[in-house]
Amino acid sequence: MDKKGLLIVISGFSGVGKGTVVKRLVQDYGYSLSVSATTRAPREGEIDGRDYYFKSKADFMNLIDYNGFIEWAIYVENYYGTPRAFVERELAAGHNVILEIEVQGALNIKNQYPDAVLIFLTAPSASELKERLVGRGTEDPAVVDKRMKRAAEESADMDQYEYIVVNDDLDQCVKDVNSVIVAKGCMIEKNMEFMNQMKAELQAL
Amino acid sequence: MDKKGLLIVISGFSGVGKGTVVKRLVQDYGYSLSVSATTRAPREGEIDGRDYYFKSKADFMNLIDYNGFIEWAIYVENYYGTPRAFVERELAAGHNVILEIEVQGALNIKNQYPDAVLIFLTAPSASELKERLVGRGTEDPAVVDKRMKRAAEESADMDQYEYIVVNDDLDQCVKDVNSVIVAKGCMIEKNMEFMNQMKAELQAL
Repeated sequence: MDKKGLLIVISGFSGVGKGTVVKRLVQDYGYSLSVSATTRAPREGEIDGRDYYFKSKADFMNLIDYNGFIEWAIYVENYYGTPRAFVERELAAGHNVILEIEVQGALNIKNQYPDAVLIFLTAPSASELKERLVGRGTEDPAVVDKRMKRAAEESADMDQYEYIVVNDDLDQCVKDVNSVIVAKGCMIEKNMEFMNQMKAELQAL
Repeated sequence: MDKKGLLIVISGFSGVGKGTVVKRLVQDYGYSLSVSATTRAPREGEIDGRDYYFKSKADFMNLIDYNGFIEWAIYVENYYGTPRAFVERELAAGHNVILEIEVQGALNIKNQYPDAVLIFLTAPSASELKERLVGRGTEDPAVVDKRMKRAAEESADMDQYEYIVVNDDLDQCVKDVNSVIVAKGCMIEKNMEFMNQMKAELQAL
């Protein structure tokens, strides 16, 4: 089988449980997780290098200049980026790397890494998604509404993903995402080298 | 998610363990298995309706005339075919159907059912494949040679499959094939209806 790792891009609606799914994928299957860099201030409990790499704006701009990110974006006046060095080192070492990233960044990455697997996580229905956001209890109704509007916008780009996985039952969702990754590794295009070797061996026997 | 089942076509080199893998897929994951019809005589221990549907040549020819097979072929003067009624009934009921079939039949099925998943099972190497054939102990060297020659021929068509799964460890192989099937069900093309409904719901909320 080919030695290069897979780049796995996971997006999904706000409130769908992306973070939990990604954490479980790392725990259960040993995937490498890319940690983003950001210029925003650490929140309570966040640890540099685990949750984010916290950077000054000057350092971040410098990294942009040096092509240090495979993608970056601005939200609410803060910069967020995916460090290139980690991703490329892990892929070269044959590790599968997971990025949790929003829609525009995901499509941008697909342009640079056509082999990347794009997975979109969704709730089983819009009403269920809303219930989850309300159920958190921490958000006021205005925030819930804003997130639902954002979900409606994001849904326009769902069809640009290759796979859609429903997060209804967490365990099942984690298994399904893992299946998608395993299947990608079995695709014929990922196994040309192995196949050609097999053919040559069979001819020679 | 779409209600129609998936048609899963499994091929692979003689001696690679297709039969065992297929049996485990049915046992572990509840897939429906298509039983072939044949004009050859039952071997000892074979049961009509479990191993094959044993048919007279006249009955078989009649079924061909009535479009009763989704594919059929002749080997060593015997006819083999995949009954259409079972496959279509199971797919319509939303069940995933497995066919174990050789290369030409598989490509034929892909033409008729473009959504079918084509999976090719291989040993980790040609020498390992040969060892397995020799290891059975039941085959004389001439038969092993013939099967290896056939494997060399079949390998020419491996790249027409969508997925290649290595049967090194049986449990792992069964899991990997299942992953391929699960992933196919998560493909965006298989979920257009669900996605459009989700979009409409989000717009309406």
